[in-house]
Parts: sequence; structure tokens; C-alpha cells
Amino acid sequence: MGNGALEAELVRLAARRMGLPTVGIVGGGQLGRMMALAGHALGLRLVVLDPDPAGPASQVVPVSLEGALDDIESLRSLARITDIVTFENEWVEPRLVAQLEAEGHRVWPTSRTLARVQDKLHQRTHLAAAGLPVPRFAAAQDLAAVQAWGGGWPLVLKTRLQGYDGHGVRIVEDPAHLKNAWEALAGQPLMVEAFVPFERELAVMVARSPAGEVRSYPVVETRQRQHVCHTVIAPAPVDEAIRKRAGAVARAAVEAVEGVGIFGVELFVDARGAVSVNELAPRPHNSGHYTLDACTTSQFEQHLRAVLGWPLADPAMHSPAAVMVNILAEIDAPEAEPDLAAALAFAGVKVHWYGKRGARPGRKLGHITAVAHDPAVAYERAIAAREALGI
Amino acid sequence: MGNGALEAELVRLAARRMGLPTVGIVGGGQLGRMMALAGHALGLRLVVLDPDPAGPASQVVPVSLEGALDDIESLRSLARITDIVTFENEWVEPRLVAQLEAEGHRVWPTSRTLARVQDKLHQRTHLAAAGLPVPRFAAAQDLAAVQAWGGGWPLVLKTRLQGYDGHGVRIVEDPAHLKNAWEALAGQPLMVEAFVPFERELAVMVARSPAGEVRSYPVVETRQRQHVCHTVIAPAPVDEAIRKRAGAVARAAVEAVEGVGIFGVELFVDARGAVSVNELAPRPHNSGHYTLDACTTSQFEQHLRAVLGWPLADPAMHSPAAVMVNILAEIDAPEAEPDLAAALAFAGVKVHWYGKRGARPGRKLGHITAVAHDPAVAYERAIAAREALGI
Repeated sequence: MGNGALEAELVRLAARRMGLPTVGIVGGGQLGRMMALAGHALGLRLVVLDPDPAGPASQVVPVSLEGALDDIESLRSLARITDIVTFENEWVEPRLVAQLEAEGHRVWPTSRTLARVQDKLHQRTHLAAAGLPVPRFAAAQDLAAVQAWGGGWPLVLKTRLQGYDGHGVRIVEDPAHLKNAWEALAGQPLMVEAFVPFERELAVMVARSPAGEVRSYPVVETRQRQHVCHTVIAPAPVDEAIRKRAGAVARAAVEAVEGVGIFGVELFVDARGAVSVNELAPRPHNSGHYTLDACTTSQFEQHLRAVLGWPLADPAMHSPAAVMVNILAEIDAPEAEPDLAAALAFAGVKVHWYGKRGARPGRKLGHITAVAHDPAVAYERAIAAREALGI
Repeated sequence: MGNGALEAELVRLAARRMGLPTVGIVGGGQLGRMMALAGHALGLRLVVLDPDPAGPASQVVPVSLEGALDDIESLRSLARITDIVTFENEWVEPRLVAQLEAEGHRVWPTSRTLARVQDKLHQRTHLAAAGLPVPRFAAAQDLAAVQAWGGGWPLVLKTRLQGYDGHGVRIVEDPAHLKNAWEALAGQPLMVEAFVPFERELAVMVARSPAGEVRSYPVVETRQRQHVCHTVIAPAPVDEAIRKRAGAVARAAVEAVEGVGIFGVELFVDARGAVSVNELAPRPHNSGHYTLDACTTSQFEQHLRAVLGWPLADPAMHSPAAVMVNILAEIDAPEAEPDLAAALAFAGVKVHWYGKRGARPGRKLGHITAVAHDPAVAYERAIAAREALGI
């Protein structure tokens, strides 16, 4: 890290000469990669911290630091050579972030926000206390407590920390299946919540600046396969009234946690049109990838504007309809060869490839967005382009 | 370069594992930078060759080669560690490119195309022979030949090689001023051409693939100040008939030089609506920067698609109007501080900053594009945002 840190220091000084800040990105996955690309367009200098020196984000910056995200020394190295520190994932411990803050570094979102969001039980408690609609929930200290919980069946048992893409979530149909689910997840802090018989899942990207300016992107529908986001339909094919409610709830959720930066807010809407908050992620989010190709300013640039205290951009879509499909590998191959040319043969299709090495089933290797005038056409093209990749 | 070349080799091998090609970019200025950013989105690996190891393009790639663009060894190093070589400027000698080709490297555009384009006298001769409308022209071996040339006054005296942004161009009003102009440019190969009393200058970005697929972006108007492109209006506010003619002439010009990649074609249109070709650049072009923010696929991605032999994208604009303004420094300062936040406060405004160190009057530091429904609104916002930068 010595050499890298030195280089980064030089980079920072060079950038200062033109008065543009250097941004440190904690985490080097695809979200960090796309954030770095948005930063390059603005002329920002970017330094990525990640344990993998050749990960998706490090591939697109001239200088990155190799280091653990749960190590205060690594975080401090990043903070010292950058003007502002932000995150591409929500898993850094709030107490480490608080330490950076105490040392005078500028970090967004704050440790206070991360503490409210990271633990899903705390998040839910906080949102409920702020008056936001959320599914019924409770802590799940032990199996007996869950058995005694009066929230009805099916119920959802999930880990309070580190869950994503369905990892750490079990839907339990009836009391007979509870013990198995408990044993699968035991050993981690758990929570229980009522299963929401949702008609659709919606999501909204909300940006908030340190001064409290809030802008929200259009409400989208997210469709999961095996708990993993598979498709995003933008805008969501729902009534204007539901869109308005969803946008308002999402903005209120981000204000409730005093979020700064971009936040992904996942929502349920039931058959009667009632909206509730499923989960909130304090970072760019898969449901906002469509903004790269369907909005003048992407969620990634919007995030950078927010954490830098710059004016937020108009989040409106410039194209009538966009459909995003994740590229989840279906094969196991260290040398997979995606047929990008075949995918790019479809009109209005953009391919985003994350530079990951090797495919294994379910690994998120990239995404495709199709833009079109007609949502059905966008959907067909996105699906067909994804199939054409042949992996 | 040893270390860099080794790293690049490793990068190439890593990329091969996912079946995506590595692209070598000759030249590390802003065009290379924006090309590299487009390549990153597609998951390509990119290696930049430039004498300046910290230039605009090198700042956005993990590996770059430091080397001269007129040195066959540098070019060979780049070609050896990449799958395909392309250019961000047109100044590499065709004989060096031919040498790479002879050694079996894939290079686009070809040495044959570069030889037809690089020398403006050859270019003009070639386009005229292909039946394209061009201003009257002749070689200018010596002052006497120009004095004897019967093309009328005013005339334009210009260098055949290396001219750009008005460098190497003199408009001579009458015979009395010819000697001064000649002396200012003497010592370089020169040509003379008839001054076209144009009503507007138009430009078209044309992409052509190795298989001969051609796609052209909308016709735009370019407005110069002191021979430097200052503003681009997209689409050009001209009749549909002129747009069609301009598009057809631009496509024919690129076909005439058997171009592969993206080409910027500069055109004159006179008061009667007659279109003629001013100049053709075998690379991304300033007049196509608006495509980054007003089209689903930018000129930079289109260039990469073309040189890789991938399908070309639909070049239509997704927004009704866009205006691009170059950020040409007005101050001389090693530590200029552009007020990006002030520029970004205007709706629909995108700022692209090239990462150059220090400002001096006229230096192109970035560009701004404003998109809007109304061209007049886009124009106002682009100009206001540029002013707001305060440099």
C-alpha cells in the first residue's frame, strides 16, 4: 500500500491544482466502478479501496489502495489522501466511520446514517418510529420468540446484517417449517417480519445533499427471480397515485435516516395500492442502473453531486421507457466468452460489463438496458439481448 | 515502459479470460479519455500510448504506456499487448501504421485511409475525384504559384499537415496581404483554396464498420470563434433538405476514404443551400461531443463498436435539442479553480472536465452540454453554465 498511497497523494495534489476534489470510494465492486466512471466525466480524481487490487472498480482508476474494508488503518489511508470518502456498499462498521469523522475527515453518508440503516432491525425500528409504513416486524432472539410472535403466517426470517440478493432470507410458510429455517440462519442476529402479499415490488432512487436538497428518480418496478433482482421496468406500470405515494414514502425514508448521497428504497405495493418500505440501501442500487441510459444524469453522478454538496440534477427520464436486465451467469467457466456483438445488435440496447473474472451460476457480471418508446419493445429487446450473450 | 508493458500484458491476458478484447489507443488527450470511458462501460480493457504519462486519457486507465507517437517501437509495444489498435488523433504517420499492419496487427482506421486523410491536399484531391463537392483548391508550391492561381479573392492559405483549431490557416483578403500570410506559414507544405462564403458550418459524425455498415449521427451546426469550435447546435437549425444533403455528402466522404471507425465531417453550406466538404477527421470529433448526453450511444462507443467489427448503434438523439459549448480557458493559471457546482446548478447541464493541469488562454479544458426541449433554452443554459465556471 505504501507505493499506492504515495501515488495517490501525488494524484490528489495534482487534482488540487485544478481545484477539483479527490473522492475516495470504499469498496471496489461494480457500484464503485460505475461511480468512478461518472467521476471521471466530471474530472474528479478517484481512489478505490478494496481487498482485491484487480476488481471491477480498480480496473478503471489509475490508483487504488489494497486493503480491508473493516480495517481502520486502510480506511484512514484512504481518507488521508482524499478530500471526501464515500461508499459503494453499506457494510463498513459505523464505529469505524465514526472514528474517521472524529479525526476530521469528511465522510458521506455519516456513521449516524449507516448505524440507522445497516442493521435491518434498527432500520425498520427507525422507519416505523418516523411514521413510515413498514411490514410488522420484531427481533428474533431465539426460536421460541419467533414461535410465539403473533405476526401470522407465512413469515419472513432474515439476518439483520450483511444480507443481499436473497442471501440470509427465508420465507416460512407455516410453523412446521420454522425450525429448519431457523437452523439455516442461526448464529447471526435475526429478525422476523410479516410476509407482505405484495402485488408488485417498486423501487425509487432518492438523492439528498448535506443541505437537505432532495431529488427522487422515477418510481420503477423490480422483478426478482429467486430473490435476486432480475428485471427493472422504468417507469413502473402503476397508477399515478401509487407512483406519487411511492415517491413520497421513499423520500421520507431517506429523510428519516438523514441520508446524504443516493439511496435505493425498495417498496412493496399490495392489491389495494398500499405502499410499505421493504428496505433502504445507503448507496447506488441495482434498481437505479437504468438511469445510466435513460436519464440525463445517472444515479452515480447524482451520488457524487450529493456527497460533494453540489446541486442535484433533474432526475427525469429522457426516454419514454427503459428495461434493465441483470446479467447473472448461467454457466460456470473461468473463460466464458460473452457475445457482446450479438447483444449489441438489438436497437436501443446498452451493455454494461463489470470486468469480473470468470463466471459461476448466479454471479452478476453486468447488466443490459434497453430504451424504447414502447415499454413492451424495451422489455423484449432487453431479454433478447441478454439471451444473445450466450452465457 | 518495461514495467508498464508487463502490467499491460497481464491485463490483456486477464481480459482474454472473459473473451473481451483489449483496445490500444494511440494518443492520450481528451478524445482518448472519453473513448476509454466508453470502453470501460463495455468491459473492454484499454491501454493508452502517449508521451505524457499523466495526460487526460492515462488518468482513467489502470495501465498506460509512455512513448512517442512517431516511434515505431512505442507503437509496436502497444500493438503487441492489445488485440486492436486505434487512434484518438490523425497525426501518426501512415508509413508507421503500415508497418504495424505488415506485422499482422489489427489497426483501424487503416494506413491507407490515414494516407488519404492526413495530408489535406491529398484528402481534397481524393474527395474531389470521388465526385464530392469541395471548395476549389490547389497545391501551393511557392508564392508565385499562389499569386498566379485563378481561384479569386479572398483565398485561404493553409498547411497541409498538422493544422487544427485554426492553427496553420490564413484567410487572405486580397493580393496585397498574400506575402505576409505566405511568410507566416512558409517552411511547411501548403495548399490554397477558395474562400467559401458560407452561411453556416455544419458537421456530421459518421461511423463505418469493416464490413461497410454506415451510420451517421444527426447533422449539427458548428459555430467558431477565432477559427476554434465554440458552440455546437444539435440538430442543426436548417431545412430537412439541407440536412439530408449534408448527411449524404458526409457518408459518401467517409466511404470515399474507406474509413473504419468514427469520422467527423465538417461541411460548408452557402446561401443557396449548396453543401461542400471542408475537412474530414478520422477520429471522434469535437462536433460530436453532444452525443454523450443527447444520444443513447455516444460517438466514442460507436467508434469502438466500429473498430471491433460490432454492430453499429442507432445514432438518433433521445433529447429534442442539445447545445455543446467548449470550455476554452480565458485565464492563465496553474491553479485555476473551476466552479463546477455553479455550472451544474443549471437544469439539463452536463460538465465534462478533461483533467488537464493548469489553464492558459484558449486551452480546451472540457466541454458543457445542455439538453432541453427547446433549442433556445439549451443554448442559454449552456452559455450560462460555461460562464458560471469563472475561468
